[in-house]
Amino acid sequence: MLIGMPAYDAVDMLDVAGPFEMFSWAGLAVELVAEKSGPLKFRNGFSFNVDKTFGEAGAWDVLWVPGGDQAALVKLMSDPRRTYLDFLIRQSEHVKYVASVCDGALLLAAAGLLDGYTVTTHWAFVPCLKGHPKVRVADGYPRYCLDRNRLTGGGISPGLDEALMLVQLLMGTQAAQAVQCNTQYYPCPPVTSEITPATECPLPPTTIAPRKTTTPR
Amino acid sequence: MLIGMPAYDAVDMLDVAGPFEMFSWAGLAVELVAEKSGPLKFRNGFSFNVDKTFGEAGAWDVLWVPGGDQAALVKLMSDPRRTYLDFLIRQSEHVKYVASVCDGALLLAAAGLLDGYTVTTHWAFVPCLKGHPKVRVADGYPRYCLDRNRLTGGGISPGLDEALMLVQLLMGTQAAQAVQCNTQYYPCPPVTSEITPATECPLPPTTIAPRKTTTPR
Repeated sequence: MLIGMPAYDAVDMLDVAGPFEMFSWAGLAVELVAEKSGPLKFRNGFSFNVDKTFGEAGAWDVLWVPGGDQAALVKLMSDPRRTYLDFLIRQSEHVKYVASVCDGALLLAAAGLLDGYTVTTHWAFVPCLKGHPKVRVADGYPRYCLDRNRLTGGGISPGLDEALMLVQLLMGTQAAQAVQCNTQYYPCPPVTSEITPATECPLPPTTIAPRKTTTPR
Repeated sequence: MLIGMPAYDAVDMLDVAGPFEMFSWAGLAVELVAEKSGPLKFRNGFSFNVDKTFGEAGAWDVLWVPGGDQAALVKLMSDPRRTYLDFLIRQSEHVKYVASVCDGALLLAAAGLLDGYTVTTHWAFVPCLKGHPKVRVADGYPRYCLDRNRLTGGGISPGLDEALMLVQLLMGTQAAQAVQCNTQYYPCPPVTSEITPATECPLPPTTIAPRKTTTPR
């Protein structure tokens, strides 16, 4: 099985790396693609390489959309060519699961792929998702939310729990337990804290270019 | 403050990326170095780039040694030039904390930097550490173990808890809480499992080249 991750400049490192690590231990192949092949940077400056373009993507079983820097999200969502959004739509039509982690959910929502689904995102971006009238936002701050074949994760570190959930969905509980054991994923943070609910979407108002119904898909 | 990570081919992705993400949210700079600059691959094939060589490393406050593929570890430990091990020794002399995650502890132990300390590693590599007569291995499978200025982590995912602990040590509890909140690090794995204690070190017997006392340091 093949998990596909569409990357972009200033994507979040752990949104990609956490799930990539978990999937690899499960024996699931992960394909990283971007609009153009070549070097990209994570939001924190770490430089990585993408070998394949969107056009070279294989036959994915799962579409996994990572979150990233706010300006990067706005750029992808407001792109009049709709390169990223339309790629998500095309890939979504053939996969078993459409997944996002963190504010990657905003990209799925902008593509219309969360309409009619109950979903979650990073706590700070809940007000942004609530701006989509057809999207139902799960109460509280779940690690992830599964509604039919939409699996959406909370912000950044929830990608680990969510990836393990996806392994369980695709391969069963024993496979997920083996990954948990190999990655020693029995977490225990040294501190505790609480989330203060966000009241405003931190993104500027973003115009999403309409789909051209004549665009070849 | 500057956290230094000496990378190598087939290093583990999450050993690097998990802590890198946590440190970045704390405002701690992270410097990735390798024997040679250029592209390297994580153990799972993900390609990344290193800009600086060992010789170009800055003044680090923390030495953070990631684990990786077994063959890669053996290669670094048995290298007659001792390039990696001697770099660890040199850096250890000036930092506030010497840290490892996963089987990165075997590299520190091979460099003699864990002699006299109580430490931990990935559960599967506990028998390897026990082969070092001067190293005390912590009971059980703690997420991390702090003994004076040695901070060693369990295998792979414990790097997240350990990195948060390091943020707390360097910057205080409030800083660690802020990182926890921003990364929504309130983990809750969807499955449970248990570790079966390892009885044998999975690495082949490895000869560590002796230090040349005349080597310029």
